[in-house]
Amino acid sequence: MAVIDKFLQNDRRALAKVISHVENRAEKYRDVLARLYPKSGKAYKIGFTGPPGAGKSSLVDIIADGYLKSGELTGIIAVDPSSPFTGGALLGDRIRMARLSNTGNAYIRSMATRGSGGGLASATKDVCVVLDAFGFDKILIETVGVGQVELDIVDTADTVVVILVPESGDTIQAMKAGLMEIADVFCLNKSDREGADRIASEIDMMVDVKRRMGDWAYPVVQTSALKGTGLEELRTQILAHQDFLKSTGKFERRRKRKLRVEIYQHLQELLLDEVKTRIGDFKLDEMVERIVSGQSDPFTEAERVVGKLF
Amino acid sequence: MAVIDKFLQNDRRALAKVISHVENRAEKYRDVLARLYPKSGKAYKIGFTGPPGAGKSSLVDIIADGYLKSGELTGIIAVDPSSPFTGGALLGDRIRMARLSNTGNAYIRSMATRGSGGGLASATKDVCVVLDAFGFDKILIETVGVGQVELDIVDTADTVVVILVPESGDTIQAMKAGLMEIADVFCLNKSDREGADRIASEIDMMVDVKRRMGDWAYPVVQTSALKGTGLEELRTQILAHQDFLKSTGKFERRRKRKLRVEIYQHLQELLLDEVKTRIGDFKLDEMVERIVSGQSDPFTEAERVVGKLF
Repeated sequence: MAVIDKFLQNDRRALAKVISHVENRAEKYRDVLARLYPKSGKAYKIGFTGPPGAGKSSLVDIIADGYLKSGELTGIIAVDPSSPFTGGALLGDRIRMARLSNTGNAYIRSMATRGSGGGLASATKDVCVVLDAFGFDKILIETVGVGQVELDIVDTADTVVVILVPESGDTIQAMKAGLMEIADVFCLNKSDREGADRIASEIDMMVDVKRRMGDWAYPVVQTSALKGTGLEELRTQILAHQDFLKSTGKFERRRKRKLRVEIYQHLQELLLDEVKTRIGDFKLDEMVERIVSGQSDPFTEAERVVGKLF
Repeated sequence: MAVIDKFLQNDRRALAKVISHVENRAEKYRDVLARLYPKSGKAYKIGFTGPPGAGKSSLVDIIADGYLKSGELTGIIAVDPSSPFTGGALLGDRIRMARLSNTGNAYIRSMATRGSGGGLASATKDVCVVLDAFGFDKILIETVGVGQVELDIVDTADTVVVILVPESGDTIQAMKAGLMEIADVFCLNKSDREGADRIASEIDMMVDVKRRMGDWAYPVVQTSALKGTGLEELRTQILAHQDFLKSTGKFERRRKRKLRVEIYQHLQELLLDEVKTRIGDFKLDEMVERIVSGQSDPFTEAERVVGKLF
C-alpha cells in the first residue's frame, strides 16, 4: 500500500490514515500491522487512569509537554469507553494540542467506541504498535473511568500511573475497583486541597501490602496540576520505574508474556474463521434447535463441530 | 456422579454442591452442565443493576419476597465483580436469607471474584442454568457497580431493571455507562427524597428516544424500598415485560441468539485446547523470540500455526 510507504518515510498524514485504518479494523488492517510490527518495540508506554474528575487530561498534557521539551516524539491516546462521541473528541484533541509546546513532535488521538468492550483494548494496543513503528519515543495512554475495560486498556502500558484526588470515599472505591493491583506509581493530584496529607498516608498504608510482596517502591507522589507542584517528582518516579523494569529484566519478561497472550488471541480468531469456512456456517440454527428442544446443550454441540474437524 | 442424582431428586445440599462445582470451574463441570442443560429453559431471569448506593439489595429482597409469597421457587445471585471477598458474602447471604419469608423456596448465592473479568459473567450464566434445571421459577441477578463486566453479567437476564436514585449527576453517569441501552424497566428508588419527580422526568425524557425505536414502553417506576411504595407497580411492570417478550416471540429469539453466542464461545475454547494437544505447546517461546528479534509478528505466527493444522 502506498500509504504505508509514505508512513515509513515519516509522513504525518500517512500516520493519521494508518491509525484510522487500524482503529476501524478496516480491510487488511492485520496485514498493515504485520508490516509495522518489526519496526515497533522501542517506544515506552505510560498508562494513566483513575476515577472521573481526578484531572487526568491536564496532568497527562503536562507530563507530555515535559517529554516534548526534551525533544522526544510523544503520542497521547485518550480512550473513553463510555462515550459514543468521536466527533466531539476531535475538537477536544485540537484544544489539547494547543496546550503543548512542540506540536511538531506531538500526536493526540481520542478513541471512543461505546460497547465495543474488549475490542477497544485491543484497538488501543494496535494503535500503540503504529505509533511505536512510526518512531514515537513515549506513548501516553489515558483512560477515563474505572472498570474492567479501562483496566484492560491500561494493561498495554509499561508503567501505570493511577491518579487519585483527596476524597477518601473515592480513593477506597478506586482501590476496590482493581486500580491498586495495576498501579506502579500512585499520584495524588489536586494535593493543594485540604486533607491531602491524610489521604496520601492512607494510600501509603494500603500500598505497603503491595510493597512487601514486590521489589519496587510503589511511590505515592503528591501533585497539583493547577499549581504546578510535584510534577517533576512524578516524571522522576515514572523514569525510575522504567529503569527498574529494564535493569531487572522485567521489561523484557512482561513484553514476552504479553506477546504470548496476543498470539493466543489471534489464534482463536483465526481458528474460528477457519471453522466457519470449512463447514459452512456449520448449521448453527439446527444446533440451536436441538438445544431448545432439550435434546442437546451448547457444550455437546461445540464438541461435535470440533470432532468433525479433526 | 452421585451428587447429580441427588440434585435431580431435589436435594438442597446437592444443589449447593453443584453450584460450587460449576462456579469454581471444578473438574468436568462442563459435563455437569451438559447433563443439566436439557432440564433448563423454564426459569425467568430478572437482572438488577445500577450505581452503588441505589439500594439494589433491599429492593431485590422485597421483589424476591413477593415471588416467594406467591409460592414461586426464587433464587438470588448477587455478583460483585470488584470484591475479592467470598467469606464475608456468605455471612451477608445469611442475613439476607433471614429477611425472606419462605426460605424453603429461596436460595441466595453471592459471587465475588476480583479480576476474573469475562469469566464471572460466564460463571453467572452457568449458575443460572443450574438453578433453572433445579426447578427455580424466578432467578434474580443482582450486580454491584456499573462497568462492562456488570453489563455482561446482567445480559444473562430476560428482563433488566436499572435502579437509580434521585441524584442527577449519578443518573447521567449511569446512562453514559451503558445502562440506558440494557434497561427494560427503569426504577427510581429512594423516591421519597427531594427532587425525585424532577429526576424521574429527566429519565423519562432520555428514555423517550429508546421508546421511539422499539415497541416496548420502557416504564419509569418510582419506588421507595424504605416506605414500601411503588413496589407493586415495579412487580407489575416486570411481569408486563415478561408478557411482552413472550407474546411477541422476542423471548424465544433472544434465547436462540444467546445460545448461538454460547456455542461460539465453547467452540473457541475447544479449538484452542485441540490445537495445544495437536502441536504440543506449538513452541510458543520460539514464536515470541522471532517477534522480539523483529523477524515476525503475532499475526504471522498465529497464521503459521493454523496453516500447519489444516
